[in-house]
Amino acid sequence: MLDPERILRLGDDRVVFLDQRRLPFEEVEVECRSAEEVAEAIRRMVVRGAPAIGIAGAYGLALAALRGEDLDLADRVLRGSRPTAVNLAWALDEMRGDPSPERARAIHRQEVDRCRRMAAHAAELMAPGTRALTHCNAGGLATGGYGSAVGALVSAWERDLLEHVWVDETRPLLQGARLTAWELEAAGVPHTVIADSAAASLMAAAEVDCVVTGADRIAANGDTANKIGTYAVAVLAQYHGVPFYVVAPTSTVDLATASGDEIPIEERDPAEVTARFPARNPAFDVTPADLITAIVTEHGAQYEPYEESLAVGEAAA
Amino acid sequence: MLDPERILRLGDDRVVFLDQRRLPFEEVEVECRSAEEVAEAIRRMVVRGAPAIGIAGAYGLALAALRGEDLDLADRVLRGSRPTAVNLAWALDEMRGDPSPERARAIHRQEVDRCRRMAAHAAELMAPGTRALTHCNAGGLATGGYGSAVGALVSAWERDLLEHVWVDETRPLLQGARLTAWELEAAGVPHTVIADSAAASLMAAAEVDCVVTGADRIAANGDTANKIGTYAVAVLAQYHGVPFYVVAPTSTVDLATASGDEIPIEERDPAEVTARFPARNPAFDVTPADLITAIVTEHGAQYEPYEESLAVGEAAA
Repeated sequence: MLDPERILRLGDDRVVFLDQRRLPFEEVEVECRSAEEVAEAIRRMVVRGAPAIGIAGAYGLALAALRGEDLDLADRVLRGSRPTAVNLAWALDEMRGDPSPERARAIHRQEVDRCRRMAAHAAELMAPGTRALTHCNAGGLATGGYGSAVGALVSAWERDLLEHVWVDETRPLLQGARLTAWELEAAGVPHTVIADSAAASLMAAAEVDCVVTGADRIAANGDTANKIGTYAVAVLAQYHGVPFYVVAPTSTVDLATASGDEIPIEERDPAEVTARFPARNPAFDVTPADLITAIVTEHGAQYEPYEESLAVGEAAA
Repeated sequence: MLDPERILRLGDDRVVFLDQRRLPFEEVEVECRSAEEVAEAIRRMVVRGAPAIGIAGAYGLALAALRGEDLDLADRVLRGSRPTAVNLAWALDEMRGDPSPERARAIHRQEVDRCRRMAAHAAELMAPGTRALTHCNAGGLATGGYGSAVGALVSAWERDLLEHVWVDETRPLLQGARLTAWELEAAGVPHTVIADSAAASLMAAAEVDCVVTGADRIAANGDTANKIGTYAVAVLAQYHGVPFYVVAPTSTVDLATASGDEIPIEERDPAEVTARFPARNPAFDVTPADLITAIVTEHGAQYEPYEESLAVGEAAA
């Protein structure tokens, strides 16, 4: 698996990120010397994926403390850098009592450990010969190591349960074609990149046995915000009778948000879609709970009613 | 509207195409001096869209006749250049008795006239204030002039029925972002390009009143092959209670094909999706008839059972 420290790490006077915008073509690092620079790296998607953004926030606050920055200001700047992921707020809340490098690194280790556990739980949902489809990148890059949805696929592959992975390329920023394919290649998992719009006909041809995605925020009722297009895949999966699994750590569950209607959806620069014509670029969508077969956290697969199962899972954390 | 002769035309010793691969950035022409060169232009998608491919085939055969080429060979080369569209076979059949420039130009005029008529029929299905979504390019470029689905949108706009058009960018070759947006801009129709995967959340937000697409081949039972992703939009439309209209000339209807299962689906070069990773690139998919609200031809809107309504429409032609 990817070395967690290669994805992001805290040094004495900087936070260092593997620049995910330039993968898979170049492996270069970005160094941030202040909380503001960390926030900028999050905004520009040098680092992306809800759990990784949370870890980045923790490192950013620890860096601010090391540098003697105003911690209230640092917290505010970091918290506002991306609106949809809840892990950022969660990690910053965790850091308020103890903004130390040790605490931030513990959060990073804890997130990677959670991924390993949820991946094992999710792999148990797959039968031998599974052909899975995934959207965007919920891999080691997105989670600071190992991966949630991609972790589940790698774990299923290691247990001889997985035959193939269909990778949605995931427009407009191509996190599937660039990042998930790169991670699956490194792990030796057979995979094929497809245009997002080709998923439906693969399902109609009975070439997809399950869908596995990550999450940016999960409301108390199970409604799940994730990369734009996830909702479309969920509707298509239900129409074709294909199970749809969300794999995410409890740091992604936001019990204070009752349903998906309350989750803010980031609208990004239309130029990411096209520089020439009027465009609209919502970065996330919400998948209603009734389209989700199971939400797999580090505590195992949770089923409807999610108000109960997610609350129990979080309490156990 | 686009001048039909600007899209494609037959000269004394050549067929000239506006190169659709380079739009909207450059407006350059490609000249073909033999049937083989016309077939190559079709394969390389210099010209695309089922009706336009049919017209190109007619011009290609007329050019072969002018040059004294072996007409059986020319027919075979042209017929095999793209497998999914039925208009190519239809136009070549039409040309067999009289492979003259006059006959080919009459086919071109006839297709444009059909578009005007079906566009008027389709516009009647829209209520004032309609926000329509379209996929790929079923415009003047795809039909040799005026357009089927885009013609319907322009016609609805001129009648004050249309408020906005959502344009699926249509990966991997971006015919929506490049061609449909270019045509709508020229016609002054308000529009916004979106990533294909964003259509579902727009529907969930009740921002889409109908879907309008073209067709590459319509089977006798109404199953419709069209650009990859059309089927996904149709499932999403049905899930959200949004009407899904196919607008296509009767030259696209193939009564000899009983259902969508018999329509060959072209698989194109995976490099169109990504040059680096294993990829799969089906160019079309099939939308089952029960997902289609109406199929609008130049004879008007046809409804289920399509075995009857399409046969009647074709007989009237």
